[in-house]
Parts: sequence; structure tokens; C-alpha cells
Amino acid sequence: MSPRRFAEHLEPPYYAVVFTSQRTPGDVGYGEFSDLMEALATQQPGFLGAESVRSPDGFGITVSYWRSEEAIAAWRAHAEHRVAQQTGKDRWYKHYEVRVARVERGYRGP
Amino acid sequence: MSPRRFAEHLEPPYYAVVFTSQRTPGDVGYGEFSDLMEALATQQPGFLGAESVRSPDGFGITVSYWRSEEAIAAWRAHAEHRVAQQTGKDRWYKHYEVRVARVERGYRGP
Repeated sequence: MSPRRFAEHLEPPYYAVVFTSQRTPGDVGYGEFSDLMEALATQQPGFLGAESVRSPDGFGITVSYWRSEEAIAAWRAHAEHRVAQQTGKDRWYKHYEVRVARVERGYRGP
Repeated sequence: MSPRRFAEHLEPPYYAVVFTSQRTPGDVGYGEFSDLMEALATQQPGFLGAESVRSPDGFGITVSYWRSEEAIAAWRAHAEHRVAQQTGKDRWYKHYEVRVARVERGYRGP
């Protein structure tokens, strides 16, 4: 992810998309497309932030935060993102789980 | 996390606790306590599963899944877990964000 790794100071309620994935071996264009999608996501209406981490063995979690379910639906339907989704299914991901959740409350520390 | 890395086949609605953290340098007892807390969490009523990943530079995301908000509250108040929470504040985490969210829907692939 980007320089700022924590999505901070968000005001509930808002929405989270939890994307958990296991990558296939090799890059096969993933790195470049991933950076592009990240940059594109930040420009979408209702995008609030994202947090992402992947271990060296290819297991990763990305959580993106959105103002509304409508904003999530619009991003999901975005033309370039749809290409990425299809390529992800065909090439990049061995398995993934996507969950859409409504954030009710949050706190931080220490 | 444990051998099974994806939390699969959960039926919405359920709850997710998204814990994003930056570790302090060094272990200072973290590894052992972390394994213990993970084992203990899986024994709690209403625990449905968890997914976790940390990058080599200490930035990590753990998402645990629960049947209800009551189950989350009970785990948060658990005596041994409270010790872990306090030690986390004192020693293990430079920064963390916790979000409690209601999972409305999910899908998987490819």
C-alpha cells in the first residue's frame, strides 16, 4: 500500500470491504495492475482509505473503507476494475474471500 | 494463523473485528502470547474464525469473525485476553486500529 498505512480518523458508520486472498506463484502482471488499481480506487467517490498486507508466501488481506454501499457498488462496476477482477480470477488468485461489512464503531491505541 | 488460513462458509449476518497494527521492534514475549491468545479465542462461544497476516516490517492485519456483538464483548472482557491487551499497549504495538463491523454479505472465488 501507499505511504500512509493506517486508515485513520474515520467516523462510523461506514463500510469495509475485507478481501482475503492467496496469490498464485509469480507476478504475471499483478504488481503493476495492483498499483494502478490502488491509485484508481483512491480517486473514487466515497473512498475513505485502505489497509493492506501480504506475507512473503502470498497470503494477503486488504481492507478498503467506503462511505456507503453505493460507493462500493460503483467501484465494483468500474470498467478498469472489472478487467482487474476478471484477470484476478483467471491468473492472480488461487482463492479469495470478499466480505462487505458495516463498521459500527472503532477505537485506536495505544 | 493456524493451519486453515481462510475463514470459509460463514453465513451473514455475522460480525468482524478488524485489528490493524504496527508492531514495536523485537519479540518481547509477543510470539508466545499471540499463539496462546489465538488458541484461546478459538474456544470462545460465538467464535467463527480468523484470518491474519503480518509483513516482515511488522505491519499486520487480523480479522476475527464472531456470531454476535455479545460474543465480541465477552472475549474483550476475558481475563487472560485483558492481560494481553494491556501488554500490547505497553510493549507490543506502536499503533493499532480496531473496528467492529457487521458483515452483510460475502462471496468467494475464483
